Amino acid sequence: MTDAGLGLIPVGFVHSPFKRAEDIPRERNIDPRGFDDVEGTIELFPEYEEGLQDIDGFSHLIVIFAFHQAGPRPGGAGLLSPPPFQTEPRGVFATRSPHRPNPLGMTIVRLRGRTGRVLRVSGLDMVEGTPVLDIKPYTLKDRKSRLKTGWIK
Amino acid sequence: MTDAGLGLIPVGFVHSPFKRAEDIPRERNIDPRGFDDVEGTIELFPEYEEGLQDIDGFSHLIVIFAFHQAGPRPGGAGLLSPPPFQTEPRGVFATRSPHRPNPLGMTIVRLRGRTGRVLRVSGLDMVEGTPVLDIKPYTLKDRKSRLKTGWIK
Repeated sequence: MTDAGLGLIPVGFVHSPFKRAEDIPRERNIDPRGFDDVEGTIELFPEYEEGLQDIDGFSHLIVIFAFHQAGPRPGGAGLLSPPPFQTEPRGVFATRSPHRPNPLGMTIVRLRGRTGRVLRVSGLDMVEGTPVLDIKPYTLKDRKSRLKTGWIK
Repeated sequence: MTDAGLGLIPVGFVHSPFKRAEDIPRERNIDPRGFDDVEGTIELFPEYEEGLQDIDGFSHLIVIFAFHQAGPRPGGAGLLSPPPFQTEPRGVFATRSPHRPNPLGMTIVRLRGRTGRVLRVSGLDMVEGTPVLDIKPYTLKDRKSRLKTGWIK
């Protein structure tokens, strides 16, 4: 990495029932289980298939992806803007908005099965064609208790 | 984003008691609470401070960072190599190894307090000077149950 930036490349893509960003039912964000029933696949490029060895034993995966359709924040709002269905502007680092200084997304999905370089998953909230940058196993250290969740009721 | 890659820039840096990568006690990885008592700070650059508004209400934060010291996988192992203190090679996407196709890390920290653009946190497992790419609030949807954690005993 240099000061000029970190060049990342997709290792695969998401196949989602949400074909366009507008198809994602954002009202489900207020329910922690809102996307649990959304199924799809993550397809890695052939050159990365070997890296999926041993993944089958994990029930949940951390997917880091690019918000590839995200442009500037709506309304030129900079680092503050209202989340969906809200009126109060919030700091971007206190939201999961796709409009961020670095367009990185993170979603934890449930692994349903694997066929070669294709993972069947549920809990998807990404749009079709989302570039996947990394997959990591979700482990006990990622499960936190006694949460305070700020402005999110 | 273009096919040529995704250019990301740091929004700040981690200040950690681990001054060199070798100082990180990797044996603590086997304990889900192994790094809970490790305190440090995340300092954002001044131009991003406004984005921290409303973050104080959250107990836990998702930090996405660059494994800026990670070179190629040890021993030229490609996409398979043994995790620390293990002998069996594992697929990289089934590990949290810093040696990944894209050098992205993700750690969930506890937010202890904030002074302007400096967050006091605990649960750090990053080295001093780690470039921070994004901060997101950890919410109920990130807390998963009935985990299976594969090769990790």
